[in-house]
Amino acid sequence: MKLSLPPKTLLLPSPVLIIGTYGSDGKPNMMNAAWGGIVSSKPPCISVSLREATLSFHNIKQAGAFTVNIPSEKYLKESDFVGMVSGKEYDKFKATGLTPDRSTLVDAPIVKEFPYTLECKLVREIDLGSHTMFIGEIVGMIADSEVLNPKQLPDIEKVRPMMWGSFGSMAYYNIGDKLGDAFSVGNELKQK
Amino acid sequence: MKLSLPPKTLLLPSPVLIIGTYGSDGKPNMMNAAWGGIVSSKPPCISVSLREATLSFHNIKQAGAFTVNIPSEKYLKESDFVGMVSGKEYDKFKATGLTPDRSTLVDAPIVKEFPYTLECKLVREIDLGSHTMFIGEIVGMIADSEVLNPKQLPDIEKVRPMMWGSFGSMAYYNIGDKLGDAFSVGNELKQK
Repeated sequence: MKLSLPPKTLLLPSPVLIIGTYGSDGKPNMMNAAWGGIVSSKPPCISVSLREATLSFHNIKQAGAFTVNIPSEKYLKESDFVGMVSGKEYDKFKATGLTPDRSTLVDAPIVKEFPYTLECKLVREIDLGSHTMFIGEIVGMIADSEVLNPKQLPDIEKVRPMMWGSFGSMAYYNIGDKLGDAFSVGNELKQK
Repeated sequence: MKLSLPPKTLLLPSPVLIIGTYGSDGKPNMMNAAWGGIVSSKPPCISVSLREATLSFHNIKQAGAFTVNIPSEKYLKESDFVGMVSGKEYDKFKATGLTPDRSTLVDAPIVKEFPYTLECKLVREIDLGSHTMFIGEIVGMIADSEVLNPKQLPDIEKVRPMMWGSFGSMAYYNIGDKLGDAFSVGNELKQK
């Protein structure tokens, strides 16, 4: 039976984006954000939406840059932790033992232990109410050689990313099985 | 070893969003979009970025509304198909056998067979280059009673959504195991 329910920001799956920034004091910070995604191919852009209450919000505005770091599932605890506490109270790199590498392209830290990172220059910010959407142009990508496919692109089966089950489960999940190839399995419906 | 690579719109995992729209002739259409995500909590908003070449782009502009339908993994072929062909050439509902239900809240069709749907009113459009980002306020949600948890929210383990492995695999995946509870598993790092 279909039910009509109140509106909810419930997207399945939701990504686990670890946003890296520097403060005006040069201190690296990271936070866990689920409100974001790719928004354009040319130029390559990604958005992340943050509340003004976060330190990352102010860091991005000040530095004009951020990184989107994709954690593998083995960094479950660290990823959850950086979404639970504020960089105003914690040195989150110190508390997690993760390492902030310097980017040569943008003024934002790379989480060294994570499989890959998108380096982003802030190109636009849009106030949407509770959240401001920061649109970053992806100007480079840093990846562990071990997670790349032969075309030098991060392979989901090697990255082993996590996802968030949103408000219906409030839990993290890993990827399961490969179901089929995109732009391929749908071919058989073309004849109908 | 860390490698510096060219920028790429490679987000893991990427969602599988089936966007529902009506044409000015009243004909329902749907397409598969991976460029999108939640962008704000209050008001609850979601974005989807589309190229002008798509029929959905024009339908959204004309109707001022769209739906975001989340397919379960059993609709793999149908989801791939609606991303491969244009609504200008195919009646995609007819070709897939899926059913366009009418929304009482927005001028956009609900894919009846899918576990849940976000009903969205267009509130903003932002030209980003190759893609225009359409921001929709989520004004309602339609869900199968079978996929809801006791709080009446879609449960990822019942919805069984798909994800796209992006350019590194060009394949669809399902969800795997529950890894841990959000805002919980990170607690132990608070003491460090």
